[in-house]
Amino acid sequence: MISDKMQELVSTSSLIRAMFEEGKRLSAIYGEDNVFDFSLGNPNLEPPENIKNSIIEILNDESPNYVHGYMNNSGYEDVREAIASFLNKKHSLNLSHDNIVMTCGAAGGLNIIFKTLLNPCDEVIVFAPYFGEYNNYVENFQGNLVVVSPDLTTFEPDLTELEKKITQKTKAIIINTPNNPTGVVYSEDLIKRLSDLLEKKQQEFNTSIYLISDEPYREIVYDGVNVPCILNYYKNSLIGYSYSKSLSLPGERIGYIVANSDMDDFSDFMAALNVANRILGFVNAPSLFQRVVAKALDSEVDINLYKKNRDLLYNHLVKIGFECIKPQGAFYLFPKALIEDDVKFADEAKKFNLLIVPGSSFGCPGYFRLSYCISYDKIEKSLDAFTKLANMYLK
Amino acid sequence: MISDKMQELVSTSSLIRAMFEEGKRLSAIYGEDNVFDFSLGNPNLEPPENIKNSIIEILNDESPNYVHGYMNNSGYEDVREAIASFLNKKHSLNLSHDNIVMTCGAAGGLNIIFKTLLNPCDEVIVFAPYFGEYNNYVENFQGNLVVVSPDLTTFEPDLTELEKKITQKTKAIIINTPNNPTGVVYSEDLIKRLSDLLEKKQQEFNTSIYLISDEPYREIVYDGVNVPCILNYYKNSLIGYSYSKSLSLPGERIGYIVANSDMDDFSDFMAALNVANRILGFVNAPSLFQRVVAKALDSEVDINLYKKNRDLLYNHLVKIGFECIKPQGAFYLFPKALIEDDVKFADEAKKFNLLIVPGSSFGCPGYFRLSYCISYDKIEKSLDAFTKLANMYLK
Repeated sequence: MISDKMQELVSTSSLIRAMFEEGKRLSAIYGEDNVFDFSLGNPNLEPPENIKNSIIEILNDESPNYVHGYMNNSGYEDVREAIASFLNKKHSLNLSHDNIVMTCGAAGGLNIIFKTLLNPCDEVIVFAPYFGEYNNYVENFQGNLVVVSPDLTTFEPDLTELEKKITQKTKAIIINTPNNPTGVVYSEDLIKRLSDLLEKKQQEFNTSIYLISDEPYREIVYDGVNVPCILNYYKNSLIGYSYSKSLSLPGERIGYIVANSDMDDFSDFMAALNVANRILGFVNAPSLFQRVVAKALDSEVDINLYKKNRDLLYNHLVKIGFECIKPQGAFYLFPKALIEDDVKFADEAKKFNLLIVPGSSFGCPGYFRLSYCISYDKIEKSLDAFTKLANMYLK
Repeated sequence: MISDKMQELVSTSSLIRAMFEEGKRLSAIYGEDNVFDFSLGNPNLEPPENIKNSIIEILNDESPNYVHGYMNNSGYEDVREAIASFLNKKHSLNLSHDNIVMTCGAAGGLNIIFKTLLNPCDEVIVFAPYFGEYNNYVENFQGNLVVVSPDLTTFEPDLTELEKKITQKTKAIIINTPNNPTGVVYSEDLIKRLSDLLEKKQQEFNTSIYLISDEPYREIVYDGVNVPCILNYYKNSLIGYSYSKSLSLPGERIGYIVANSDMDDFSDFMAALNVANRILGFVNAPSLFQRVVAKALDSEVDINLYKKNRDLLYNHLVKIGFECIKPQGAFYLFPKALIEDDVKFADEAKKFNLLIVPGSSFGCPGYFRLSYCISYDKIEKSLDAFTKLANMYLK
């Protein structure tokens, strides 16, 4: 008696659960130490030490009705102001609390953005490979997801194909940089060309095309690479941010949306995000953690540990014959599978107790994703299994 | 460029904001002490003292990656098990963690319930007066809200009209007890008759009709009244609960859904709630506060303070000539306005610095709502203003 759409989604999710159960089954047979789970994006680094201290400070210093109470559906004004100032300094912007809505993580943020923007059958364009949940977020509001094929050389958006796919119905484009699943950080040059193309298309169709940058990994970057801030390049732009990764707080559901003051209908847009936050049932981002992140704007987990993981795993995979772009952000590798059928390849990997996610889940068959947000020791121990897997095909 | 529906909603919400701004304007002129805001359902009682201690204990005793990390989208299993045991003892039930999904408050809970149940154009029936947000929650998933007229004598659901309004398309009925805005607690007799009617109608139409009890005020009851647990009366039943009021934690967005094991398609239903929690962007209820409420199951705010407020305000209003049912729960009074036009009456009340909500907002014109979750002193100070307001019409 559940709805038809949910009936479908429950079937799909039971496949994911089956994978998870398989991991538990393997652990029961071989011992947890000998099963190498690269399937989950659950950060293993501890939150910075000042998170705990900040919580205790807040509980001691502020009134409990204030800390745990309702506030404006967009979030505490002082928290939004603090985030605006932080971003102004970092990216030479001119934001105030009016540009910010506190959200239940980036997932909550994207849902209220689509609730705000989409009429039924509006189109949202993504670039493969992409985070599979975008399908659901857009469908929640009767939008249609349009997928641009992957550029397998750079894993940056293919602007030639994008140009062909923009129509009168295109309401938004999602980019995700640093990217899940590739780890690629989009270059400033790409952002500029993308912005120019969108400006041109807006004029051609006399529409507004919103550029949404989903940036839960913004702080997780290596080798001194720069993540360009799209607010500096394109007027109809906004960012969905989450503290899940930068502060290792994924369960607390805390993030924000920041929107460009120069966008079309800015004040209606911000008012609508506020209403959408309320009526979708978020009401507001969790109150205590709004206050916590405002005290920890300069903090982040120790990125060097992720970098060590990346280097260890990447260097080994390339050495044994995998093709893989060297990612400069996030905590994923996206190597090419050694056979065409990535689902079958992921199945084969299980024989070596390796749990990996087929690229098909990201709209990019023939590849697979490895999450290296697990312990260094575990990765070290897994290398031999990857070698054995590779030897099945490459020797 | 925002969606057509959001355009409408933004206009409505700016009316609410105008009311809020009016309060600020009056405070600026007359001083905050002389403005009597009975419009908001924001609990004024402090959370129980053990909330703070529980938070600190959890931070000291448990690993930060566990406390702030991802878990099953339905919530921590041990937390759900603890809630199930608590409910089993309280209501003689036989629940386990499988019956429970932790949610972002009751608002988040209702949204994932409707996402789970509704096909486009399915009908959900409510009883006026009702919490206006139900309109939005049902429309989020293309459902149609069907309203049963108020029974102005008892403010209990009118079952005769309900019977006529149940159709082949009826997917769910919402009850809200203790009720916002009337404060009425539905009797066991009513729940039994409602259950019998729904059983009969299910057979007649060969459908499943889910009875959803929205119970954020379940613990806020007076005079030893009993709130019957619908899981004991009707198979296709579920409860949306929130700790916002019982623990004064409305900003933390923590609650749960508990569903009857005997309902149709129970396991699909629970799996779908889990998926809906994920794809609507909640992902999971905030993690730290899941663990906090599990440690505070026996705690509640000091209800006697709300009761003192109720008695003071109710007794005065009745004495000066208002007609009002004496509520046994929640923290609202719902008196009859002294003129037919409740919106105009609320406007008139402002002349005495009284901020009240017209009954029209709850589908029940001719009445108005007073939230008495404010300080006793403030209520005491407001009594004279109510007398002056009444004298305009009754002398």
